[in-house]
Formats: sequence, structure tokens, C-alpha cells
Amino acid sequence: MSRLEAFSDGVFAIAATLLILDVTATGSPLSAELLRIWPSYVAYAVTFITIGIVWINHGTVLSLVAQTDRTFLTLNILLLAVIAFVPFPTRLLAEHLFDEDAQAATLLYGITLVIGATIFTSLWFYGALHRRLLKPTADAHLVEGISRSYLPGPFLYLGGTLVALYSPMLSAAIFMAIAFFYLVEATVFARG
Amino acid sequence: MSRLEAFSDGVFAIAATLLILDVTATGSPLSAELLRIWPSYVAYAVTFITIGIVWINHGTVLSLVAQTDRTFLTLNILLLAVIAFVPFPTRLLAEHLFDEDAQAATLLYGITLVIGATIFTSLWFYGALHRRLLKPTADAHLVEGISRSYLPGPFLYLGGTLVALYSPMLSAAIFMAIAFFYLVEATVFARG
Amino acid sequence: MSRLEAFSDGVFAIAATLLILDVTATGSPLSAELLRIWPSYVAYAVTFITIGIVWINHGTVLSLVAQTDRTFLTLNILLLAVIAFVPFPTRLLAEHLFDEDAQAATLLYGITLVIGATIFTSLWFYGALHRRLLKPTADAHLVEGISRSYLPGPFLYLGGTLVALYSPMLSAAIFMAIAFFYLVEATVFARG
Amino acid sequence: MSRLEAFSDGVFAIAATLLILDVTATGSPLSAELLRIWPSYVAYAVTFITIGIVWINHGTVLSLVAQTDRTFLTLNILLLAVIAFVPFPTRLLAEHLFDEDAQAATLLYGITLVIGATIFTSLWFYGALHRRLLKPTADAHLVEGISRSYLPGPFLYLGGTLVALYSPMLSAAIFMAIAFFYLVEATVFARG
Repeated sequence: MSRLEAFSDGVFAIAATLLILDVTATGSPLSAELLRIWPSYVAYAVTFITIGIVWINHGTVLSLVAQTDRTFLTLNILLLAVIAFVPFPTRLLAEHLFDEDAQAATLLYGITLVIGATIFTSLWFYGALHRRLLKPTADAHLVEGISRSYLPGPFLYLGGTLVALYSPMLSAAIFMAIAFFYLVEATVFARG
Repeated sequence: MSRLEAFSDGVFAIAATLLILDVTATGSPLSAELLRIWPSYVAYAVTFITIGIVWINHGTVLSLVAQTDRTFLTLNILLLAVIAFVPFPTRLLAEHLFDEDAQAATLLYGITLVIGATIFTSLWFYGALHRRLLKPTADAHLVEGISRSYLPGPFLYLGGTLVALYSPMLSAAIFMAIAFFYLVEATVFARG
Repeated sequence: MSRLEAFSDGVFAIAATLLILDVTATGSPLSAELLRIWPSYVAYAVTFITIGIVWINHGTVLSLVAQTDRTFLTLNILLLAVIAFVPFPTRLLAEHLFDEDAQAATLLYGITLVIGATIFTSLWFYGALHRRLLKPTADAHLVEGISRSYLPGPFLYLGGTLVALYSPMLSAAIFMAIAFFYLVEATVFARG
Repeated sequence: MSRLEAFSDGVFAIAATLLILDVTATGSPLSAELLRIWPSYVAYAVTFITIGIVWINHGTVLSLVAQTDRTFLTLNILLLAVIAFVPFPTRLLAEHLFDEDAQAATLLYGITLVIGATIFTSLWFYGALHRRLLKPTADAHLVEGISRSYLPGPFLYLGGTLVALYSPMLSAAIFMAIAFFYLVEATVFARG
């Protein structure tokens, strides 16, 4: 399992760190420009935290799984492909939050998160249903608690995405709220 | 062996994650631009999965190898150099799939994969022939199955590349098909 | 703990290595341009060393901690978010050190380091106060020495930042001096 | 020692993989452009292999070292700072090999390698002299062989750099020759 973790950790860490490459300040004077681009900071922070949370949860999943199989590995690669994709919609969201392209940017950001959350939840339930891939020692209450915590994820993000059809700003605020909700949840189940 | 794995995992993970830096949307309106650049999404997904597969296979190889020698290490560095090169032809392929440079871009993408598959297959057969570097415990049937699975790789990619002389689009479709074929194969032999 | 370390190491290593992407030389002739951009080299070196130091100190903290909890994990993700943010103010500082935007760039660089140092010090004291998360074997003198060494960090960086209101150049020089001071401190407490 | 290795491996892998970001083809037609930029491919390959070799040698050094101290850690961070710097002169060398800035680019590339080789050799001799940091089990003949292999490094690169004053092309060819020489040497002493 350790190389699966190493590759996954690498993708999570790189995707999160690459986010900063899309924060740029080229206007003048710099002081005004640095204030003007505040959506970039918020998008950076919320997305970094979101990736950090998925990384924590991913670690929780792997710590409970005894073995992997072909479906699990395939789902994991698809999840990593979505995680590594995240810097792209994040950059667009930060750039376009206040112009006429806000809706397109928010929808892309939301759809990316819906797909990611759906794959992540599938990864967990594929391994956890009937304890298919779980360690015999995996505590049944913990497993159930995690299932309850992950299940609403795709629906929360889908809801936030649909809100973008009405108000991109509200949609972005909901994504932020979901990030903070899961930051709390993630740290409950994490075992160092 | 663990540092060889760490360095290799790092290069695989970084090369895969850097792919997203080449996905850009600068046209206006954004909604139309996001639909127009669909070849970028496909190129990103297929290439990410291809790198993921080579990573899985690379892990399978290393898990069966008991020791390394100078030739094995040299082949491994050459393989990583090709893997880290992949974002360049991928970017060109996504940019030029529908313009008059489609053939040049597809040929470069294909040639890169032919070279990569050739080095990878060489790495495996160098270690596996007469069980030169294999662990004594490496199962003979598994070793044979892997050899049968890897051998056609360079020829499949060479065929796909030659097709680009006739139709770049068909060539790109073949690379996609090979990726999905090997996704299935890779997960058969992977042992977590 | 090992995945926490792997993810953290990844972010530290990537943030430090990405710094070079912001060093560019496009003027002509190249020889004059390479001399003209010396602030880029200094900013690169000082920031790389600063990130290296925080990485060493972070390793010292984790080596003394027996377990983590939700607050510790959250502080750690916030710390990593700041570390991964550092290439942005570094790029601006190198670009603007000698133009009319020097103050804005130096302030942003300084504020980033103040926030980073504050989170890092909080991470340590959260774990070390009343030995909350420390290993039973963690030596009391070592713990006290580390506390004495980390505590001034946020104040040193705050002082250096405030100096930027008066002289950006002096402020940059102070950040350099703090880096060298902590390079010495960090290697005292590091245990391989 | 394992976190030192993880951070170092990360920097090596990232620096090597970032090299590809500087390979670009924007001219038209693409087929001609892809042939015209062949110096980029050579610079990419030689530099990737050079970083790979230093990584192999770095692994050899760490495998023989029993403990680290403050000087060793500081030298290691300085070495990593130089390794992470390498993509910058590589990009300039590939861009300017055939224009009037060839000499400046070759000199910068060479000076970077001289500094890197000097720090690396210092790192080794600091640890190996009087077996200061070596494991008791480190074989004396191996240690001596490594010392003999590393010592000429800075002088070889210095010679290649000075040649750039007379002929940048010849200088670049010498750097290529040194890379292949050390590829052979590195794999002799590497122990998987």
C-alpha cells in the first residue's frame, strides 16, 4: 500500500502547491493591485484547505483498507486526476468572480468538485460495503460514522453548483462553507 | 530500494500533476471557450491515466525485483526522463488537434510514447530475463503474464504513431484505446 | 504520522522548488540582464533557506509529538497553506525591490512570514503546553530550548515588516538576517 | 534520516520534472519548429540525467552516513537550493545556444554546476574525513573509491566553464560528456 500512498500524497501535495502559480499581481500601483485581487487569496485558501481535507480523508480511507483491487486502484487514479485538475477551475474562479463570466467559472468549479466528491464517495463505499476491502480490525462504529459523513458530500457540492445558476457569489460562499464543515469532520476521523 | 521508489514516485506524480498547467482558457465568453477546449480535457485525462498506468506497472516491476544494478538504474533514469517529458507533447497535441499542425503534434506525442514504452519494456526484460534481478519468491506464472502484457506495448504505440501519417484524429483515438486497455491490464498485476 | 510527514514534506519541497519558476531573464544582452536581476537570486536564496529552516523545525516538532488531534491537524494545514503561498510574495519582492512598489512588496512578504511564524509557533505551543501531545520520552530541556527559540519568531518578523514602512531595503535585509539566525538555531535542535 | 531523504528526494524529483516547463514550441509550422528547438531537447536530457546522477550520488552518501549535524544539514540545504536553481540556467542555455548570448548562458550554466559540485564534494568530505559521520560498517575501500570519484567533479565543471570563454558550444559538449562520465560512475557505487 505504501507506494499508493506515496503517489497519492505526491499528487495531493503538488496540486495544492501549484495553486499559487495562478495567483498573479501585474497591475500598478502594486498596493492597489494586491487589494484588488482578494478573490485570488480566498480561492487559494479555500481550495488549498479543500485539497487538504480530501487528503486527510483519503488517508483515513487507506488506513482502514486492508488490500486494494483493480476497481479500487482505477477509482483512485480517477480521483487523483480530478484533484490534479482543480488548479484550473480555481484559477478561472479567482479571475472571473466579478465579471460577466462568473457563472461559467463557478459552474466549472462546482462540477469539478461534484465529480471529485462522487468518485471519492464511490471509492469509500466500494471498499466499505460488506467490508469488502476493510481490515478485520476496522471498527464498525467508525466505518459507519465515516459513511454518514461522506455520503452528503456529492449532494452538498451539487446543491452549491446549482445555486450558481442563480447567483455565482452565493455559490462560491457555499463552497467555502462546505470546506469549513468538512475541515471539522475530517479532523474527527483522522488518526494521525 | 526505497529511495529509488521515492524519486520515481515523485517524478510520476509531478509529471502527471503538471499536465494541468497546460490547460488554459483565455477566450471570451468563458462558457464558449470552456466548451471549445474539450480536446485539452481529453488529452489531460488520457495522459494522466497513461502516466498513472505506467506508475502502477513500475510499482509492479519494482515489487518483483530483489536488487538493482547499473544498467537497471540507468534505464530507470531514462524512463523517468521520458515520463517527465510527456507534458510537452500533451500540451502540443491538445493545442493543435484541429489545426494544420495536428500531424506534427500527434507524431511527437506518439514517438514519445514509443520511446517510453520501449525503455519500460527493456527495463522489465532486463530484470526478468533468466530472472536476473528478480526475487527468488517472484511467481513464475506472474512473471510470464507480465512479460506477455508488456511486450506488445511498444508495437501498439508504434502502430498508433504510424496511423498519424494517415489520420491524426484516428491516431489520437488509438492512443486513448491503448490507455484504457492498459488500465485494465495494469490493475490485474498490481499488488496494492 | 508518516502520511502527515509525507504530505508536509511534499508541500515544503514543492514550494521551495517552485521559487525558481519566478526567476526570469528576458532582457538583452543576457550578460547585463543576468547581473541586473541579482535581487532575484538573493530573494530565491533567502526564501529557499527560510523554507528549508521551517522544514527542519517542522521535522523537529513532529519528532517530539506522539499523536495529533483535530486542532493540530488544522494548524498544520494552515501552516502548509502559508508555506505554499510564499513563492507569490517572493516573486513580487524580487521584481519590485528597486521600484516605487518596493514598500507594498516588502509588506506583503513580511505579513506572509508573520502569519506563517505565528501559525508555526501556535502549532508548537499547542502540542507542547502541558506536554499535551508530546512523547513521554521528549526531553524537558530540549522542549524548553525549542520554546525559547521559536517564541521570538513572530515578533522578529513583525519588527522586520514594520521597518518596511520606513525603509523596504532595510526590511529585506532584516528578513535575510533572521533567515541566517534561524538557520543556526534550526540545526541545533534538529536530530537527523 | 528518513525525512531528510524525503525532502531531498522531493527537491531532486521536482527540479528534474520542472525542466520540461521550459521546453516550448510556439513557431509555425509546428513540424519545423519541433526540429528547430533541438537544443531544448538536448539541454533537457543532459540536465535531467545530471540531476538524476546527483540524486543517485546523494543517496549513496546518505546510505553511508550514520548521523547528521548542523554543518551537514546546512550544506545539504545549500546543495538543494542549487539543484532547485538548475532549471533557470538550463532554460537560458537552450534558448541562447545559437545566438549572441551563448557565452553568458553557458557561463551561468557552468558556474551553477561548479557551485553545486563544490557543495556536494564538501558535503561528502565533511562527513567522510576521519569518518566523522560515517557508519562504522561503511567499507573503507568503498569510501575511498567514492572520494576519488567525487573529487575531480568541481574541477571538471570549472574546466568546462572556462572553455565557454573560448567556445560556448565546446563548453556545452563538455558538460554533456561529464554527465555521461558520471552516469557510469554513479551507478558503480549506488546500492539500490
